[in-house]
Amino acid sequence: MTTVAIIGATGYGGVELVRLLQNHPDIRLAFLHSESYAGQRMCDVYPHLAGLDTVLRALDAAAVAECDFALAALPGGKLMEIAPQLLEAGTRIVDVSPDFRLRDPSLYPRWYKFEHTQPGLLDEAVFGVPELHRERIKSARLVAAPGCYTTAALLALAPLVADKLIDPTDIIADGKTGISGAGRTSLKLPYHFPEANEDVSAYSVGGHRHMPEMVQELSALADAEVRLTFTPHLVPMTRGILLTAYVKPLPGVTRDALRASFERRYADEPFVRVLLDGEWPHTKWAAGTNLCFLGIGSDDASGRAIIISAIDNLGKGMAGQMVQCLNLMLGVDETSALRVRAVYP
Amino acid sequence: MTTVAIIGATGYGGVELVRLLQNHPDIRLAFLHSESYAGQRMCDVYPHLAGLDTVLRALDAAAVAECDFALAALPGGKLMEIAPQLLEAGTRIVDVSPDFRLRDPSLYPRWYKFEHTQPGLLDEAVFGVPELHRERIKSARLVAAPGCYTTAALLALAPLVADKLIDPTDIIADGKTGISGAGRTSLKLPYHFPEANEDVSAYSVGGHRHMPEMVQELSALADAEVRLTFTPHLVPMTRGILLTAYVKPLPGVTRDALRASFERRYADEPFVRVLLDGEWPHTKWAAGTNLCFLGIGSDDASGRAIIISAIDNLGKGMAGQMVQCLNLMLGVDETSALRVRAVYP
Amino acid sequence: MTTVAIIGATGYGGVELVRLLQNHPDIRLAFLHSESYAGQRMCDVYPHLAGLDTVLRALDAAAVAECDFALAALPGGKLMEIAPQLLEAGTRIVDVSPDFRLRDPSLYPRWYKFEHTQPGLLDEAVFGVPELHRERIKSARLVAAPGCYTTAALLALAPLVADKLIDPTDIIADGKTGISGAGRTSLKLPYHFPEANEDVSAYSVGGHRHMPEMVQELSALADAEVRLTFTPHLVPMTRGILLTAYVKPLPGVTRDALRASFERRYADEPFVRVLLDGEWPHTKWAAGTNLCFLGIGSDDASGRAIIISAIDNLGKGMAGQMVQCLNLMLGVDETSALRVRAVYP
Amino acid sequence: MTTVAIIGATGYGGVELVRLLQNHPDIRLAFLHSESYAGQRMCDVYPHLAGLDTVLRALDAAAVAECDFALAALPGGKLMEIAPQLLEAGTRIVDVSPDFRLRDPSLYPRWYKFEHTQPGLLDEAVFGVPELHRERIKSARLVAAPGCYTTAALLALAPLVADKLIDPTDIIADGKTGISGAGRTSLKLPYHFPEANEDVSAYSVGGHRHMPEMVQELSALADAEVRLTFTPHLVPMTRGILLTAYVKPLPGVTRDALRASFERRYADEPFVRVLLDGEWPHTKWAAGTNLCFLGIGSDDASGRAIIISAIDNLGKGMAGQMVQCLNLMLGVDETSALRVRAVYP
Repeated sequence: MTTVAIIGATGYGGVELVRLLQNHPDIRLAFLHSESYAGQRMCDVYPHLAGLDTVLRALDAAAVAECDFALAALPGGKLMEIAPQLLEAGTRIVDVSPDFRLRDPSLYPRWYKFEHTQPGLLDEAVFGVPELHRERIKSARLVAAPGCYTTAALLALAPLVADKLIDPTDIIADGKTGISGAGRTSLKLPYHFPEANEDVSAYSVGGHRHMPEMVQELSALADAEVRLTFTPHLVPMTRGILLTAYVKPLPGVTRDALRASFERRYADEPFVRVLLDGEWPHTKWAAGTNLCFLGIGSDDASGRAIIISAIDNLGKGMAGQMVQCLNLMLGVDETSALRVRAVYP
Repeated sequence: MTTVAIIGATGYGGVELVRLLQNHPDIRLAFLHSESYAGQRMCDVYPHLAGLDTVLRALDAAAVAECDFALAALPGGKLMEIAPQLLEAGTRIVDVSPDFRLRDPSLYPRWYKFEHTQPGLLDEAVFGVPELHRERIKSARLVAAPGCYTTAALLALAPLVADKLIDPTDIIADGKTGISGAGRTSLKLPYHFPEANEDVSAYSVGGHRHMPEMVQELSALADAEVRLTFTPHLVPMTRGILLTAYVKPLPGVTRDALRASFERRYADEPFVRVLLDGEWPHTKWAAGTNLCFLGIGSDDASGRAIIISAIDNLGKGMAGQMVQCLNLMLGVDETSALRVRAVYP
Repeated sequence: MTTVAIIGATGYGGVELVRLLQNHPDIRLAFLHSESYAGQRMCDVYPHLAGLDTVLRALDAAAVAECDFALAALPGGKLMEIAPQLLEAGTRIVDVSPDFRLRDPSLYPRWYKFEHTQPGLLDEAVFGVPELHRERIKSARLVAAPGCYTTAALLALAPLVADKLIDPTDIIADGKTGISGAGRTSLKLPYHFPEANEDVSAYSVGGHRHMPEMVQELSALADAEVRLTFTPHLVPMTRGILLTAYVKPLPGVTRDALRASFERRYADEPFVRVLLDGEWPHTKWAAGTNLCFLGIGSDDASGRAIIISAIDNLGKGMAGQMVQCLNLMLGVDETSALRVRAVYP
Repeated sequence: MTTVAIIGATGYGGVELVRLLQNHPDIRLAFLHSESYAGQRMCDVYPHLAGLDTVLRALDAAAVAECDFALAALPGGKLMEIAPQLLEAGTRIVDVSPDFRLRDPSLYPRWYKFEHTQPGLLDEAVFGVPELHRERIKSARLVAAPGCYTTAALLALAPLVADKLIDPTDIIADGKTGISGAGRTSLKLPYHFPEANEDVSAYSVGGHRHMPEMVQELSALADAEVRLTFTPHLVPMTRGILLTAYVKPLPGVTRDALRASFERRYADEPFVRVLLDGEWPHTKWAAGTNLCFLGIGSDDASGRAIIISAIDNLGKGMAGQMVQCLNLMLGVDETSALRVRAVYP
């Protein structure tokens, strides 16, 4: 039985990891970390987990280092401090914080407001999107899973960018997220029910911190500098991200060529569903799952193509993708513990 | 492999059965019925079930009769017409329509607006709440699973009524339901999003059709005539039922005695969670599961006790409970395909 | 022009007062108080009030005392400290805090966790429900407007209790509230959108602090000791309260007698709408208004009557009722600034 | 007193007109039309309008023609049949159907599925956005108010297009609407609460029928052919539209120049609020009002500007704008009956 520590087990990502891994046949949850709730049982914090009486513990790198894997969902800048110690002890890491996503350490102060103290690990870290980096993930010691918007954007854009079918400098990504993306501990006014309900608004316009990781990954795929306008919006629902991407096909690229690019790249992907012409995805289809639904179409009048992706921000956008990476690293069936359908409606 | 037919597979109860049974180790879905969508594939009706390309079929009793089990979720008065043929062929039935819930056939015209044509089966049918009728369900040919409100009410009241701790003629049940309880095909104005959102209202005041089944079961437990005021309310959410029961403990019955009654009866129940003193359940804790959470308290000023139950109306209130009954009838682990935690938040 | 100070102008009750009074023909808002936002303009705190550039001021009793009226919506225990000074200066007060609602000062430590320092004012304060105390409000110096649940409960129960048609010791009030009732500054986890959305739960079971004021007013009307079980529930919407009251008519009291009691008492009330037999109110009907809708029915099987009231918790449940009291005190048309229809849907 | 007929009074736009006009000092509602509810009183259809006992009448052009004004909110293709008769009788019309929005009659069969039978009126009809056509509206006999998305798009784009600051062929408009935009009578599955709640999805991708009217108006302002990609999305709320526009400033056009264009054009507009740099609008700010909030920013990395508009789809997007037009036609204060603040929260 492989032992797993969850670092940050009482955030929404953490509790989703607990839910998914509970039925994983090869995994034992050996360490559940929570700073705020250390000493309490998981079921005290989340009463719906009645019976799960594992006691939450404060961060203890030595104890985590006894586990085979650490799945980390901490705020930015914290995991990097203990990552070297864990790796040295042989504990492999799947991290969903920003700490190891960016190749270039100089980007951290600007986008994440901290200096990177372990730049030597950035090259080793594998970007945790199996559809892009499956082989490298399998053997990785350190996987840096992206943010939820980034996953939605990469799955919508990667085939076209990699196949050089669109202008890499003319991309717009308009994202709509459920409010669980803001996390559980951030009790800020915009997430207060009376404020968020019956409201839609944009935020971080022209400068959301997930943009650099989108650009990094897409530029690598394009082998060219990608420029992207990304605008996230808050919508009054708990889970789900819908990302609407507007792209400019290069001259001569037909709608069929666009579609073929997606079908080729995702043909064998267990969690990506390319919809038929004229079908467009709903976030509800992905609720509670690791699935990504993709719709492809075009606007003939303007010569643009439109790609829409839908995921569960806590599923493929966070905990689901972490488990998928874990499965790859473990060498077990990539879909272990992830073969579920959306809770619908 | 046991073969199962789902009759009414494209309603919300049906699609929840599909979701749950898909990962059941002992079951094969051999027949999916839908009248409205006959000839289409399940994944055409519910695109989130991409890949589930079973073709939906119109009702064909002979074909259903080839299955070991039929799980039926039809509108009232329809299953009773084919039930004799199925039973004769050896197909065991778990029905969630009202057709076989009531012992007394004369109640049907008043509450369900149809004459019962198979009154001879009413005695045989077992009321499908495992917590009340587990042994009889195991060997039943015909199980009549109750409505969602009824399940919530019975689990909240059964211990106290059976242990004769409360006045059986002084019971109030105030229910709050999510809107999926109205089903999928009933596109009525009260369920239109702009009407239902930001609104709470009561309906069927003084005469909801689930009341007779509540009274029947509670009276049997009490060995006395139970009288109950039941008022359902519609609240703006998709899933979940919260039922607040107000009861009058008999003279000398202490709060501890009430609590002990619950703990005794539900000690070994895999799906019932009795909360600690001072804890009260949330419907969200049960979302997507077969769990029932129960809170117990009292109002000293008025001498009343208050019991609150929370379930997922499509889980323990419908499809989950049907699968639990199926497991019992099959003789497999009662929790097969039901060992999941709520999708939270 | 009558000058009005709003004490606590940036809470949800305060901003609703601002909205309503802005079009009041006889009123000038002369002082807007906010402790947290003192020095900022109202439109900085609430951008939807673009153009309303009145600067918010810290509490300054002397400045308030220059106004003709003070409308106060502070947390409990604060207004009572400055009330004597205001009254002495001739400033009349409509207060929606608990400070002057209860006749008996000894109840404050238990229910509101503070010692009352101005018990001498409790006898003078008029309970601010015009339907019960219109004449006294007109000439009052100090009006104590009740909580939102209390208003909903009193309007549903007052006629029956006053006319001695029901057993005053057998009353249950099951309340369902939108989340704006929790206020704006209380950023607690239960009101975080991902927690509150898709959830219903009860709170303060067996001991909500609004109960004593309900009991006080109903007992006065009944001229007998009223006992009442009150259970509030949180439902996922922003505005609205629905209160379902279960009562026991005295022997010989017919349904018609119950209805006649309501029609008699509310015949000339500008803000109470008694629905026809078989009609039940929706909270949405009252959204943004000072209206109360009342449905009346009975459950023949159990011999209980059921009364359901619907109000906007920030309208008739708070700011609307305060303005109604203000109009009475001013001697102007009671409906000034309140003649609006619900924003529907 | 000016007499007004509302054609289509029981749709969401109609009932919003009733709400707004009820307090209009110069207007008397003389005729309320409803085909489905003819013969019933308005308060029977909408119980929140208790007391409004005007009897709804089937369409009767002769009776409407006795009114000074007709405000029409019918499905497409119906008003055009009676418009000539009304105009001939001197009844001035504000229509919110598509019937008179498009200059080019040949566009109707493609976008609205009907042949235009009154092409001669298309030239006379004035497009009902006061910010663009105020003077012509004042004297118009026939005003064609645009769809809700169109209003949001035009207010966000008109200054930049008219001032020739952006590339008119490179415009993207990503819209998010509340579900009341679908109307009241269209009880379709996507608007069924359990389907729409907790979901976001796009629809009419690459070909929404409001696009031609956006293009017509913007092209006229630009004096050039505008090309626009417009993608509408359904979000789980009742009211509100947020429209996020992505545009490409022409070389040398600074952010300050963009902002100056907005400030110049809307300086005296009573219902348009241009936000400060860094502020972005919320749909909730406009709920129940005729206001439009505009945020202006840019994405330096991509060289795009981003303009976001927020309106109430039933306010400035429908009934509010119709009343604004009516006020202009009447020659009274343009803000009559529209000087309200959002119901917030």
